[in-house]
Amino acid sequence: MGLLVVGSLGLDTVSTPFDRVENALGGSATYISLAASYFGGPVRLVGIVGSDFPEQYIKTLENHNIDLEGLQIVEGGKTFRWSGKYHYDLNVRDTLLTELNVFEKFNPIIPEKARKAKFICLGNIDPELQIKVLDQMDDTYFVVCDTMNYWIEGKKDDLLKLLPRVNVLIINDSEARLLAQEPNLIKASREIRKLGPEILIIKKGEHGALLFTEDIIFSAPAYPMEMIYDPTGAGDSFAGGFIGYLFKSGDITPDNLKCAVVYGSAMASFCVEKFSTKGLEQLSYLMIKDRYREFLDLSRFDEK
Amino acid sequence: MGLLVVGSLGLDTVSTPFDRVENALGGSATYISLAASYFGGPVRLVGIVGSDFPEQYIKTLENHNIDLEGLQIVEGGKTFRWSGKYHYDLNVRDTLLTELNVFEKFNPIIPEKARKAKFICLGNIDPELQIKVLDQMDDTYFVVCDTMNYWIEGKKDDLLKLLPRVNVLIINDSEARLLAQEPNLIKASREIRKLGPEILIIKKGEHGALLFTEDIIFSAPAYPMEMIYDPTGAGDSFAGGFIGYLFKSGDITPDNLKCAVVYGSAMASFCVEKFSTKGLEQLSYLMIKDRYREFLDLSRFDEK
Repeated sequence: MGLLVVGSLGLDTVSTPFDRVENALGGSATYISLAASYFGGPVRLVGIVGSDFPEQYIKTLENHNIDLEGLQIVEGGKTFRWSGKYHYDLNVRDTLLTELNVFEKFNPIIPEKARKAKFICLGNIDPELQIKVLDQMDDTYFVVCDTMNYWIEGKKDDLLKLLPRVNVLIINDSEARLLAQEPNLIKASREIRKLGPEILIIKKGEHGALLFTEDIIFSAPAYPMEMIYDPTGAGDSFAGGFIGYLFKSGDITPDNLKCAVVYGSAMASFCVEKFSTKGLEQLSYLMIKDRYREFLDLSRFDEK
Repeated sequence: MGLLVVGSLGLDTVSTPFDRVENALGGSATYISLAASYFGGPVRLVGIVGSDFPEQYIKTLENHNIDLEGLQIVEGGKTFRWSGKYHYDLNVRDTLLTELNVFEKFNPIIPEKARKAKFICLGNIDPELQIKVLDQMDDTYFVVCDTMNYWIEGKKDDLLKLLPRVNVLIINDSEARLLAQEPNLIKASREIRKLGPEILIIKKGEHGALLFTEDIIFSAPAYPMEMIYDPTGAGDSFAGGFIGYLFKSGDITPDNLKCAVVYGSAMASFCVEKFSTKGLEQLSYLMIKDRYREFLDLSRFDEK
């Protein structure tokens, strides 16, 4: 049982116009797990780090009741490192460095207990590995999957094998256009859903997110942010909040999927308010509910 | 009494990847008036054309109960002409030709009856002319105003004189950033509201619209369009639907402003479904209500 999260853990060095952090806790599995942890556990993380991964980061994850049985710690190995620089408008970033290190040989092994998870979030890693994860699962399950331009362009065949096994694909607007080879997002959504996922979420950054199912289109607003301190991890936090809420409620009806999209948006908004994972570390479910309420106020209008 | 609309009337030659029309009915006052006409009249139009302005276009306006007492027809003069070409993604357009013709000497004269209008929509014209309109009004009134980059850059002083006399400013996101000299739209909204208008609407095209007042921020979704035939006039149709609904309801409370933003979005979505003003010509209030309902379905989510 529980919620399984598979993805990267890393040490991020990030600079924005406002500040800079070195070797901060990062990685898709990290952000997803932290965001999902507020919706009740257990969240079971599967990933890989080196022995240089700071003990305090292990503690941070454990403090959020994240089960680390599936975390491989490679003795003498170096943790995945990423370095990026955001520009003034924060929509553009330069990757300064990507060192895969132990991540290069990552072979996700799903512990016994995690194989029975009913909800799985596949963070943005090689689709070949994402398939390996699903192959190890015991049971029927609900799969939420992230990917990126790099895999759409470089591992399309594997991605196309994966997608029919995925319930929800979460990508951003440029990835959707690339995957569907279609600039119009409404048309693109139809093409992408034909590839397998019955549910598609397109994230549009400061313009919110769109949810597509067979029967509905839902447009979630973006939280009005005056200051984005660090956009790193926003998409992963979205995925974590989304699947966390579905896992908590156990309800995958369209109406509940809409709520989950808003919880995902709420977690992304908390994430970008501070550097690294700091925005996700000191929350409470009450704070998250309050932000959900703000999304309601932001988008609600009368029936007349 | 009634709703006063002041702006341009023109003959538009437009090509998109799908089609091309020549000397079609165009101009900001045209689109605003047609969109507003569905919300009950009288809509009183003030503008200028030459004697080459086709009789059938006069008929089109009259068929929508638009009062043309304030339409100046310059004998022997040529009507304002605009020609533009839209590219594949329809967000980029090249202006191929702008011939001001009679519009160059436009001096808006507000007829007696229109001076008592309680609602005024100032289409996108020189802010000096927009001021001249307000100077002729008898009474207290509610003013909705559009402008554009051209005036923000070239007639800033006049614009800054006008803005304190305006209740609602409607501009797009790039105009908002330019006017406030601030890339973040939430911060920009605060700066712009300090310049006068207590209500600001920022249109974001395919990403919807934002409404800002002293107390609220409202995010309206965009209608999911698979095909945009001709984006010309979308912003004016938005303004027409917005003020038309306010005029009809006579209610300028925040909750009703939100509804008006959605009615504006609905009218813009009808506008772009056909070439020129065709998308606004054959509607009914029931069709508009149905589309409003679609916006509700698109954005509504549960309170839980």
